Amino acid sequence: MFIHAVSHYLPEQIVGNDHFTQLNGLSDEWITTRTGISERRKASTGENTNTMSIEVVSRLQEKTDLSTVDLIVGATYTPHDTIVTLAHAIQHYLGIADIPTVSVSSACSSLLNAIEIVEGYFALNKASRALVVVSEHNTAYYNEEDTVSGHLWGDGAAALLITKERQADGDFTIKGLLTGGAAHAGKAVEAVVLQPLVKGVIMPYGRDVFQNACIYMPKASLQILERHNLTAADVDYVLPHQANLRISRNVMQTLGLPEEKLLSNIQYLGNTGCAGCAIALSEHWESFKKGERIVVTVFGGGYSYGAMLVEV
Amino acid sequence: MFIHAVSHYLPEQIVGNDHFTQLNGLSDEWITTRTGISERRKASTGENTNTMSIEVVSRLQEKTDLSTVDLIVGATYTPHDTIVTLAHAIQHYLGIADIPTVSVSSACSSLLNAIEIVEGYFALNKASRALVVVSEHNTAYYNEEDTVSGHLWGDGAAALLITKERQADGDFTIKGLLTGGAAHAGKAVEAVVLQPLVKGVIMPYGRDVFQNACIYMPKASLQILERHNLTAADVDYVLPHQANLRISRNVMQTLGLPEEKLLSNIQYLGNTGCAGCAIALSEHWESFKKGERIVVTVFGGGYSYGAMLVEV
Repeated sequence: MFIHAVSHYLPEQIVGNDHFTQLNGLSDEWITTRTGISERRKASTGENTNTMSIEVVSRLQEKTDLSTVDLIVGATYTPHDTIVTLAHAIQHYLGIADIPTVSVSSACSSLLNAIEIVEGYFALNKASRALVVVSEHNTAYYNEEDTVSGHLWGDGAAALLITKERQADGDFTIKGLLTGGAAHAGKAVEAVVLQPLVKGVIMPYGRDVFQNACIYMPKASLQILERHNLTAADVDYVLPHQANLRISRNVMQTLGLPEEKLLSNIQYLGNTGCAGCAIALSEHWESFKKGERIVVTVFGGGYSYGAMLVEV
Repeated sequence: MFIHAVSHYLPEQIVGNDHFTQLNGLSDEWITTRTGISERRKASTGENTNTMSIEVVSRLQEKTDLSTVDLIVGATYTPHDTIVTLAHAIQHYLGIADIPTVSVSSACSSLLNAIEIVEGYFALNKASRALVVVSEHNTAYYNEEDTVSGHLWGDGAAALLITKERQADGDFTIKGLLTGGAAHAGKAVEAVVLQPLVKGVIMPYGRDVFQNACIYMPKASLQILERHNLTAADVDYVLPHQANLRISRNVMQTLGLPEEKLLSNIQYLGNTGCAGCAIALSEHWESFKKGERIVVTVFGGGYSYGAMLVEV
């Protein structure tokens, strides 16, 4: 399985920490010390997970031909429409008839769930060119006055063309991936919630999220490496879910890896949910070097996790 | 792939057409003539897609052991929580650690998308005993005063244990299934929408939904039959998505099959979204006879469709 091309989209509006200083009295230092976040993007009126998905797919079209895509898997926990999901909006935009089209949510870990679903379709020979689109519109649901988590969230989207066979020399190889639910652990079903009818992404047990993210991301990373007879020392970059810079640093420490190997965009994007890692892959795409190994590892509310080993 | 056991759950509260006569002036005859619906169920306060999912899984536990389930796929377009999805709620309830857990939405066609995802995990040898749970809480989102579609919706849930290998003589065989997006067709991205931030399941183009449902469900049914060298004449029962009794009858006519072969619960449950067909499978489970063939075919808003051939 290969990643042939990646694109991302970030809304224009930048929201700095000063916004939350004015709104909630949280200082820039207080926010950056605790989260690493200095600014984040906010979608404008009229934008939503579906429009951002279409935008990011149109950017992917500039890089590669999407006319023979035969599977679309969308992912979001901040849906614009739960019936006309982002996957359906993309299928409509591309105008490709009769291909499997589905959107998923496994919170912030959905990117890897989506890719694992693609892996299944490839194994079944029901698809060979899959479009995976991750899109989050956190600011549509969040309560920015929430002093616990209002300042964490950002908006953004990314798209990946994943193919069963190698298309070009520059393709990245997905050596393997795993996902797992950890809803049995800690305060999984209370710690982060988004009930659309209540609104607000609420995180009443941030400490529990922090602790479990720091357990499951290194654990999943080591598991996927072990399956390929590799250790952390064989990894060039780790790309963890962009939830909190302190979590990312903790993951690196547990893996015994220096911070130079950490890929991170939370400083200027905040937590962009399941889109964060894919946006980072797109941002760094051109600078990776042949032979480098990247571990993408995710953790999400409801508690689910995953890890994917990518070779450039 | 086999269906080893099925269960369903219906909320206690029954809402008859008289409710909509009082509310919107729609007569019982007007509603039944156009939709076939006489009554539907409504979840009570405190119930939601997650609680109904847990209830239906606990009912499945009475029929079979779920302790070795190794994959959970949930489906809904009426989510209680988009982060702690119904799949996560079920994983938490079962307490099974580290298994892939994901929820999907492809509107009313999600049952077959969920089963196709399971098929992929089976092909990958990443799972062999999958729990598929479909749960809809339409009355949480609908506008009952909407004279176009307020009277259509009902609540309910169902769970299926799907296994890679046959577990018992009574297992139903899934001979094959297909899904497809049809978001390129008609008014796919406008005809039925559920934007959680706006609320209301809205169906501004019911006629377009009707027409496309009547095209795609027979077409998909014939496709899956053809792949198994069968024709409509070889089918004992057709179980279409429960959207409208007139659509179901139209599907039977197109397939050239008598109404005795139609399985239907819309008369007393309304449109229970992606749960409808699975509830019907559960309701009729005991009365199917060895060797009978059932075609389950679905169509959903955003426009997606599917068909599954089951042999008893």
